[in-house]
Order: sequence, then C-alpha cells, then structure tokens
Amino acid sequence: MSQPIRSVGLVAKGGSREAVRSTNELADWLERRDIRVAIEEEVAAAREPGFNGDLYDPVNGYDLVVVLGGDGTLLAAGRAVCPGVPILGVNLGQLGFLTEIARAELYPSLVEILAGRFAVEERSLLEITVVRADEELAFYRVFNDAVIAKSALSRIIELTLKADGGLVTTYRSDGLIISTPTGSTAYNLSAGGPIVNPLLPAVVLTPICPHTFSLRPIVVPDQSRIEVTLETQEAEVYLTLDGQEGTKLRYLDTVRLIRAAKGVHLVRLSGRTFYDNLRGKLRWGG
Amino acid sequence: MSQPIRSVGLVAKGGSREAVRSTNELADWLERRDIRVAIEEEVAAAREPGFNGDLYDPVNGYDLVVVLGGDGTLLAAGRAVCPGVPILGVNLGQLGFLTEIARAELYPSLVEILAGRFAVEERSLLEITVVRADEELAFYRVFNDAVIAKSALSRIIELTLKADGGLVTTYRSDGLIISTPTGSTAYNLSAGGPIVNPLLPAVVLTPICPHTFSLRPIVVPDQSRIEVTLETQEAEVYLTLDGQEGTKLRYLDTVRLIRAAKGVHLVRLSGRTFYDNLRGKLRWGG
Amino acid sequence: MSQPIRSVGLVAKGGSREAVRSTNELADWLERRDIRVAIEEEVAAAREPGFNGDLYDPVNGYDLVVVLGGDGTLLAAGRAVCPGVPILGVNLGQLGFLTEIARAELYPSLVEILAGRFAVEERSLLEITVVRADEELAFYRVFNDAVIAKSALSRIIELTLKADGGLVTTYRSDGLIISTPTGSTAYNLSAGGPIVNPLLPAVVLTPICPHTFSLRPIVVPDQSRIEVTLETQEAEVYLTLDGQEGTKLRYLDTVRLIRAAKGVHLVRLSGRTFYDNLRGKLRWGG
Amino acid sequence: MSQPIRSVGLVAKGGSREAVRSTNELADWLERRDIRVAIEEEVAAAREPGFNGDLYDPVNGYDLVVVLGGDGTLLAAGRAVCPGVPILGVNLGQLGFLTEIARAELYPSLVEILAGRFAVEERSLLEITVVRADEELAFYRVFNDAVIAKSALSRIIELTLKADGGLVTTYRSDGLIISTPTGSTAYNLSAGGPIVNPLLPAVVLTPICPHTFSLRPIVVPDQSRIEVTLETQEAEVYLTLDGQEGTKLRYLDTVRLIRAAKGVHLVRLSGRTFYDNLRGKLRWGG
Repeated sequence: MSQPIRSVGLVAKGGSREAVRSTNELADWLERRDIRVAIEEEVAAAREPGFNGDLYDPVNGYDLVVVLGGDGTLLAAGRAVCPGVPILGVNLGQLGFLTEIARAELYPSLVEILAGRFAVEERSLLEITVVRADEELAFYRVFNDAVIAKSALSRIIELTLKADGGLVTTYRSDGLIISTPTGSTAYNLSAGGPIVNPLLPAVVLTPICPHTFSLRPIVVPDQSRIEVTLETQEAEVYLTLDGQEGTKLRYLDTVRLIRAAKGVHLVRLSGRTFYDNLRGKLRWGG
Repeated sequence: MSQPIRSVGLVAKGGSREAVRSTNELADWLERRDIRVAIEEEVAAAREPGFNGDLYDPVNGYDLVVVLGGDGTLLAAGRAVCPGVPILGVNLGQLGFLTEIARAELYPSLVEILAGRFAVEERSLLEITVVRADEELAFYRVFNDAVIAKSALSRIIELTLKADGGLVTTYRSDGLIISTPTGSTAYNLSAGGPIVNPLLPAVVLTPICPHTFSLRPIVVPDQSRIEVTLETQEAEVYLTLDGQEGTKLRYLDTVRLIRAAKGVHLVRLSGRTFYDNLRGKLRWGG
Repeated sequence: MSQPIRSVGLVAKGGSREAVRSTNELADWLERRDIRVAIEEEVAAAREPGFNGDLYDPVNGYDLVVVLGGDGTLLAAGRAVCPGVPILGVNLGQLGFLTEIARAELYPSLVEILAGRFAVEERSLLEITVVRADEELAFYRVFNDAVIAKSALSRIIELTLKADGGLVTTYRSDGLIISTPTGSTAYNLSAGGPIVNPLLPAVVLTPICPHTFSLRPIVVPDQSRIEVTLETQEAEVYLTLDGQEGTKLRYLDTVRLIRAAKGVHLVRLSGRTFYDNLRGKLRWGG
Repeated sequence: MSQPIRSVGLVAKGGSREAVRSTNELADWLERRDIRVAIEEEVAAAREPGFNGDLYDPVNGYDLVVVLGGDGTLLAAGRAVCPGVPILGVNLGQLGFLTEIARAELYPSLVEILAGRFAVEERSLLEITVVRADEELAFYRVFNDAVIAKSALSRIIELTLKADGGLVTTYRSDGLIISTPTGSTAYNLSAGGPIVNPLLPAVVLTPICPHTFSLRPIVVPDQSRIEVTLETQEAEVYLTLDGQEGTKLRYLDTVRLIRAAKGVHLVRLSGRTFYDNLRGKLRWGG
C-alpha cells in the first residue's frame, strides 16, 4: 500500500465508555502525527474543552478507518463504509473473527500501518433489495447474513428460492439464512450450515428448522442472482440484516441478493489464518 | 371396554364446511341409535330447522369424543378433553400421526366401537405453569410441545434448564422445544431432535439453533420437574403451546413442566403401529 | 445397604503399572480390615513375595467390585460382572462418565462404603444374540452399545429393523448403533443421536451416515424385542460390542437385542447428577 | 464446438447385458456414419462374427466418449479419460446426477452432438498422492471424493489437516471425506456435509462421526494444497476413491490433494440446471 495515510475515520462501539476513551486517546495520537481525524458524535461529546474537528461520515473516503469494539461494531461499520477504504478492527474484549488486533497491540500496529507495512483482505458484501409489487422498496448491504424468518407465534412459512431466474427449491421452514463466507461462522453455523473459507466466491443458503429433511444447506456462487419470495399469506415474517436491522415482509415480497461489486477491505497484520481463528474461536481440536 | 357408549361429543375442524356437514350427518346417525350427542356451536348453527340439543363442552365426561379434522384439530381437542375420555380421530384429509381412521372408515369403525370392540392408547400430556415473581401466572396443557423462542428481531437468548431442582444446563440459542413423545415427530424433528416412541415415559428437550454445538437434544424422564428460566433481559420471547396458542415471557419468568396425571386416551382400531405411521408419513425407507 | 462387605473383587486397567500398584496397595488395605480380596493375574504377578490368594473371577458373587481405571475398564468389568454386585469405578485419569471417584478419594470413599453409607444406581445392559440360519451363534452383553457397521472398503449396506416382530424400517447406511442410555453419550453422540437420561427404560437406534435423510435417530422402549437383519450380500460387515469386541456378520444374519433382566449396579457416593457429569464432560454451557 | 467428431470411445457398464447390447447397437449406428468407434473388450466379445476394430483405451484422445450406464460407470470413466475429451452419460436406469440423457434420448441426442449443437460443462477432479516417509507411493484421480476412514473394528482415529502448509485442525473421528462439488451430493451428504454448486472452485471437508462437535463441515478453495496425515498408530485405516478403489494407510502416511489442472468435460444438451437435478433426485420440496 504505497499511498500515505493522511486521514483516518474512527468508529467506537456505541455506549461503551472504554471505547470512547480509547478512541479519543487514539485521535490525539494521530493528530500529533499530523493526520486528519474524524470521530463520531458520541466520542466528540466526551472531548474537553469542546470539539470542532471533523465528524465521522462513512460515505467519506478516508485513507483508513479504525474500529474500536467487537465483531458487531465492525459489521456495522463495514456495511456502511465507502468501498475500498481499509478497515482495522481493534478488539476491546475477547478475540473476534473479524477484528485483527487486541487493544494492547493498537499503537505498535498503527506504526506499522502508517509506514505502509500491512496487507488488506477483501471480504464480500451482499446487496439486498426488497421488491414489492415490482417496486424496489428498500436496499441494504450485509457483511454476515440476511435472514428471512417467521415470528415466534407464526407457523411454518413457505419460501421460493430462485437462482439466475430458475427455480432452486421451495422451503417449508422457520426461515432461511443467506450468508456470506464471513457470516458462515455466525448464525449459519447454529442452524447447521457449513463453514466457508472467505476466499471462496460463495454464498451459503441454510434453512432454519426445515420441515423437509432433504433441504440441506447449499453453497452457491456469489455471482448468482438469488431471489427469495414469501409464499405464505398469513404469517408475520421479518428480514433481518447482520442480526442488527430488520424489516417486515409481506406476502409475495421478493428479496433479491447479489454480491456487491466491492467488498470490505480488512487490514491484515498478523500471519494468522482463517483456520487459526477458527481453532481459537470454536475450540477446534479441543 | 365393557361400559356401553351412551353419550358422544363431536368436535369438527373449525371453518371447514366439509367437517360441519360430516359432523351433522354423524350426529343424526348416532341419534338414530339412541345415543346422546353434543355438538359445537358452529355445527349446531348449520342444522335445520334449528337446534336445541346439547352443546359440546370439553369438561363434560362423554363416553366417547369423535374429532373430525386433522392432527391439529385432535391436538386442540385432546388438550382440553376431560381426562380418560376415549377420543377417536377421523381424518378428513391426508393420513395423520394421531387420527386413527379415514373418512371412509367412519361408520364401519363406529359400529365396532359401539359394540365395545376397540382399544385405547394413552398418550402423555404436559402440564405447564408460567411463574412470574413467585406467582403462578398461567396454566396450560400440551399434547405435542411447549416452545420457548425469541422473536425474529431479537438476538440469541439465554435459558437456564433445571430438572428436579438441579441445574441441567444453560442454553444460548433461538429457543428450546419441550416435547412429548407424541410431539417428537412435529417441530422437534425439524430442529434436529430424535423420534421417541410414545410408550416411553419421556420428554425431549431440543434447542433451536444453539450457539454451543455440544447442546444436543436430550431425552429425560417425564416424571422430572422441569423448569426453564428466561435469563435475557431485552429480548422479545414467547411461549407457544402445540403451535396453536402463545404468550409473551418476561425476564426471569420460569416455565414449569410436569407430566399430567392423566393423558389422552386415543381410540385404536387398526393394528397399525407407531412405526407403520412413521414409514407412511416420513417416507422412511423410500 | 445393610449387608456387610466381606469380599471384594479388584479389577485393574490392563497394561497399566499405576493401576497394578494402586490395586495391590488397595488389596493390602482391605486385607488389613479382614476383607477377603480377589485380584487379577496381572496384579497377582506383581505381588511380592508371590501370591496365593484368590484370583478374580467375574462370575463370583463378591459383595463389592472395585475397578481402577477409566470408563473403558469399567465397561468391560460391568458387562462381565455377576448381576447385582455393586461396582465402584475409581478414575486414574480424567473425569469419566461412569467412574464415580478420583484416585485421591479412594480410601475416604471406601471407609464410607464399608460402613454401608452408599447408594447404588442401576444401569441397563443389553443382551445380544447373533442368529444365523435359525441357530443362535453367539451371545453377548453390552453396557454402552452394539454397532453393526460396514468395513471401510464396502459400500452402503441395507439393514432391516424390526421391533416386537413388526417392521420398523429399512436402513441404507454405513451401519446402525443400538445404544443403552449409558452409551448415548458415546458413539451415538458422534453419529448425531440424542443424549438419554439413564433413568429411562430406553434404547437408542441411530444410523451411521444414512442415505435417506428421514431416517433419524429413534428412542424406543428397552422392553422391545429388537431385531436387525443384514440384507446386503457382498459387503463386509461387523458387529462390535462396546467398541471393544467384534465379530463378522454374514448375509441374512440377525442380531437380536433385549434388555438384560438385571443391569449393572454402580456405587454412588457423591450427589453429582447425570447432568453435572454432562456439563463437566461435554463443556456444556461453555 | 466447431471441430467435427470423427472418433468416439464407447464405455459400457460392466457386467450388464443391456449395456453391452446398447453399446454394440450404438457402435453400428456410428460406423454407418463413418465415425471411427472404439469399444471395450467385454463389448467386443459379444460382437458377431468377431471383432477386429479398435479397443477403447482411455488415454486416447477421442473426439467424444459415450458412457452407457449409471453415475458409477461415468465416475470411473471420468477419472480415467484423457483431459478435455467431452463425455456424454447415457442413463440405462433411473435419473442420475451426472448422466445427461435417458436411453430413449440417445439417438436424437447424438444427431445434435454430431451436428455440433451441444455445450460442455467442466467438472473438477482432484489429484491425490499418498506420501509415505517422503516418498510418493501412489497417485489417483477422483471425480466425487477421497475418503479416509477407519475399519469397522478400529477405534476413533486422529487425522491432522493442513491447507497450504498451515494447520487447519486435528480430527478425532471415524474418518474424513474430501469431496469435489460433484461429490457433495454423494457420501458427503450422508455424513452431514453441504451441497455445493459445481460451478464453485471448492472442496468440501466433512468429518465422519466426529468426536468433537465443533468440527463442522468446511468448504475451502480447490486451489488449496490439502494434506491429511494419519496420526493414529494402531488403527486399520483405508483411503477409498470415489467409493470404487481403496488402499490401506499406515501411521504417518500423508494424503495430498489438489485440483487437477483439467477436469471432466460433461456434454450438456438439456437446459436442466444443477438445481433441477437436485429437486428430482433428492425429492426437494416434496
């Protein structure tokens, strides 16, 4: 990465005093190195004696974004960030799948990054459109997964899955998880889906509590145009995005998914592989 | 069964014209044989030239209850019926797990039953109490299952399971299914639980999409006093009963379950075994 | 347990010097208390200056059998022991499902047991007969499980399962595990079967890698007369017992299973429940 | 496909009189169209009045190979065939995953193919090397899967998995299935693995009856250099290839897998998609 880093956006875990304090400390550290810093309102509000610098806006093209929090904070920041901006995840708690470094490694790591000694790993995003009566109702991006699921009180629902215009199958289940490889170790895994290496250009489709046993998880190319239509009339059904946002679906609504042209650029410093993370997080081999 | 049948309660699938017609036809047939018949309001309303007989009340101790509908109708009738009353399920649609005979077999079967030539098979019921702040808030009976599950928009919930006062485990999952053997082939099966022969004095506990892989389905004695406590504060969580009724649970609510002293007495005419039904319904061996 | 303990059989893990040493130490301790002790040949051979006491014979009705080893040693001893003799499992390694106490607790525990302060918990055994051309070819007892499985080089096999004379289903799979509740946490669990509380009078039937998805694990009464017949002609198929013994099966051989009239009587000292063991061994809730 | 078809190799299902008869009939039909035909010995032996044409040799570069049999025959032919030669699978029995047409469609389909009106779909092959004490002991190609599995009488085995030189995990299980996308609907599916669309450059690794619950199926890039080493000393362990060939593995043997540079070129005539086949074969949505 030859381009020098002159502007850094800082994202802190919401509602965490530790994250706010660490972020302000980091802002000072960066400004002392003549780097322009943008911070969120919650962080700015905690600054003395008042703050008149830049507020963080994800649509801006910073040279680097640093996220202080856990995988959840990084998911939200990753979905929103301007395509191509490198993101560094700093874990304030326990080891994450997505966050690259621990709190204690922050400043030594930044010295490396400012000197251009880092790699980026692209993770795919999915673009999701909700279509109702031929109108595009809503648009989202997800980093982990889009989940279509019935509410607790509704009965089994029916979903039709198409890929590239052709019928794949009809699910009778509690719902369906459409996951990126990054999301394959999240909700997908709890529902019985496989782990997928993030290098694969793939999407995983895993039904939740399927009524038909043969409806097993399926891994498909992420270039497929995937369409899921709700075929049940009376049920209360929701689309949730990265487990963080949600919207209600109606009878015959169609959810369209396609890989986003650009994914999230995660900053990589360690030699830790995807498999090393799996062993650490899933207690593999234990 | 030596006791002669002098009173019969008739239960029809709600909202089904075919069920109403069949039930009234059956009521006439029984009355012609000097048997006192009780019917539901929906059925009575369809009678010409008006009806002044008995209305069906599940707390009455009929000598026999005939249910015309599917497994769902039988589930609801079975939960409510006076303990020990034999119930005959007549399937108006496709083969059910619980309904014993098809529509075409109704009258020949009744001739056998009125002559005392039938067996009964007892199926267990669970009694369920919701306890909030040491008060018994609600009481239910279930024939298939009690399900504690988060709503579509809530995150993973935490449930503590105790048996006979001792800790069993803590679940981090979308929910937990507590199923009778009868219910083991219903929702439990979709969530990965085992099939349990109804002769076993057992209850199945199957988590829905558990976060921890080792939290496998477990089969316990139905004499256990089972208690499930909701340990998550912010989530929207529901208790549903046989997939037909539901109630909202709050933080620290406890759901207590115990086998009902008396179960449902299903009338058995055929030599069809539980395994024969499984093969037919689940396409076993296909 | 009012009957005083006057004779104790000692079983040591085979090939373990630690087990031999601990067993001889224990034999001395018991003899000093005027208790008649029987030891195995391997242990006797290690005694100085030679041994002319009793050799352990499982068919003898000792007042107590003490097993020094792990779950595997206890499995083998439990299968062979005279019905009704209380068995105490002493774990020389890590916590077991079956062994009740650790090495360090041995002598304090024996003081309690000799004073009659202990409980016994009965665990079921299965009796297994291999029938070939109407002749009873071999007879076994198992504590954990009987497994019918194809060899690595054979293709899928077909097994017919009957219960009490009626067809249950036909499996097309790598094999079938027939497990006691005790064995439910062993191989059965790896193959996707449920955990079953040992208090339940049940047997678990779990196919290994079934070809048909609907062939799910099934829990049946242990009073069922279970028969499994090998329907594949060319395959190399084995019956293995508690993972410790094995025999080859031929085309049309039938394996019959029924609960043994008497089970294994495990000595219980602690208040640890089955669920406590599960949490400890399976890292439940971790 | 602009190149005219002048030579065709014919492969018939072994031991099938129907396959032999159909193949000879097809040979005559092709020769009448001045196409040079190569047949197998078993087919040649059935020809009257004796045969002095070409014998089929998979290393020859025919313009087309036609396989008459089922998926098994096509698997074996596909592994052996010269890279890049188009293969047409003709199903003599029930619908296959790999065979493209039914017996009745054979001649109309060939008219299309000879006129150049067909597509080819590349399916990946894996190249497998068994390494013992740094020596390459054996080399294979597989179309569906390579399976490393213990024999029925051995206990659980330990396998170390590496990808591109780095540790992935250590399996304690009955074995491990390494499957192409084509093989994902075969043994992999019985062992709980996901379905993988053949367009994905992926390999599926699915443990057989794993001892550790978190060892879930994993999908990795087929460009990975995968190495599996047998870490158990006493066990009897086999490597099987497409379920059709096998070899014994020893302690510390390593199985290396990599995608073959060229895959199998299946002739495609219908518009049937991979998903259409799944629905037909797996009774999806039924």
